[in-house]
Amino acid sequence: MTGTLHGVGLGPGAPDLMTLRAARLIGGAAVIAYPALAGAPSFARAIAADLIAADAREIVIDLPMRTDRAPAQAAYDAGAAAIAAELDAGCDVVCLCEGDPFFYGSFMYLFARLAPRYRVEVVPGVTSVTACAARAGRPLVARNEALCVLPGPLPDAELRARIAGAETIVIMKVGRHLPRIRALLDGMGHLAQAVYVERASLPGEVVLPLATAPDDAPYFSMILLTKGADPWL
Amino acid sequence: MTGTLHGVGLGPGAPDLMTLRAARLIGGAAVIAYPALAGAPSFARAIAADLIAADAREIVIDLPMRTDRAPAQAAYDAGAAAIAAELDAGCDVVCLCEGDPFFYGSFMYLFARLAPRYRVEVVPGVTSVTACAARAGRPLVARNEALCVLPGPLPDAELRARIAGAETIVIMKVGRHLPRIRALLDGMGHLAQAVYVERASLPGEVVLPLATAPDDAPYFSMILLTKGADPWL
Repeated sequence: MTGTLHGVGLGPGAPDLMTLRAARLIGGAAVIAYPALAGAPSFARAIAADLIAADAREIVIDLPMRTDRAPAQAAYDAGAAAIAAELDAGCDVVCLCEGDPFFYGSFMYLFARLAPRYRVEVVPGVTSVTACAARAGRPLVARNEALCVLPGPLPDAELRARIAGAETIVIMKVGRHLPRIRALLDGMGHLAQAVYVERASLPGEVVLPLATAPDDAPYFSMILLTKGADPWL
Repeated sequence: MTGTLHGVGLGPGAPDLMTLRAARLIGGAAVIAYPALAGAPSFARAIAADLIAADAREIVIDLPMRTDRAPAQAAYDAGAAAIAAELDAGCDVVCLCEGDPFFYGSFMYLFARLAPRYRVEVVPGVTSVTACAARAGRPLVARNEALCVLPGPLPDAELRARIAGAETIVIMKVGRHLPRIRALLDGMGHLAQAVYVERASLPGEVVLPLATAPDDAPYFSMILLTKGADPWL
């Protein structure tokens, strides 16, 4: 009997925004896997730290801080092999995922490698999208409104076309693209409707009108644009 | 001291997919509010039922099964007034919301009425979007891919334009629009990449290729289209 791989969403960062199912699986896990970036402490592990058993075995997927793909592919290959060895030995593995495993999550690369051969269960999590909306006090979409989630690194022309095509827009991975995106939204007449959120639900959380947000945004920051919800039904 | 209104996301339906924070707030609540549709049992209350204290006061927001706005507005007005009376008396109120309160949720209408006057805290929840992706085994978006969430009742021309503009598309509120949307996706060459999900995470869950889904879909059903994720990084 091979084991089951659980890809477990942890939510946006506050430990109590993980689901009851995630907490139960993490607390009962004999083997935990998680990503870490270039040797830094793993954010995913930090969210779950209080639940991890003292004698759990831990598989660290150490991702290089590089934009070329080959080193990251090698890291996922090695992580998948270590997880597969535990599954082959009949042990379940709980893989910790910031946010939701299938929403811009590194778990997707482990899933691609392991789902063809092993039983994989995915536990969805609260995404940063609704966590940011909650903290900003900004309802996202109602009735027949459309929501578009866009990565900030997309070029201006693509951003502009997609921003025009939905009532509510969430721009992820803002980082160093903030000044460019702010100028673009200003040019479209949307600056006053846009809010900037950083570290939603965590200590050091920042919620500001985009107009007054600092130029040097971290990678995990977000812009939320709601054009004109009709909140009164 | 007036009380605080907590808008609490419950997730997609399985009780253990609510967050630890939601469970703590519900378990400790002296006053609970929730929507119910036309006198039917409340789905939101059913998700949370095991956590609600036996002596909790319950405010039912009984929504009419009508498409015109006035009767629903009156129901939200009455619900907001009942909640405001508890808050004025110094009691906190926990309002139960299927999914996430700010994502196509009826809580948005209570928020519009009460947030200007009272302290309101929103607890984000797992949405049906990531719950459906988890159950279908379909990673949603990676890297610089865009995700678009569309309500099924939108007319064909709008659906077509927006489907063309994103790598991954989630179509909510499918219901009786299923045959029309299926024909549209077929015409765009996307039928083979589309999956149909109904009652994700609940007993009676259905996950099918869209090509073989039944014509008579319930309102709470979803179509998930992933055009071409590159899962290997």
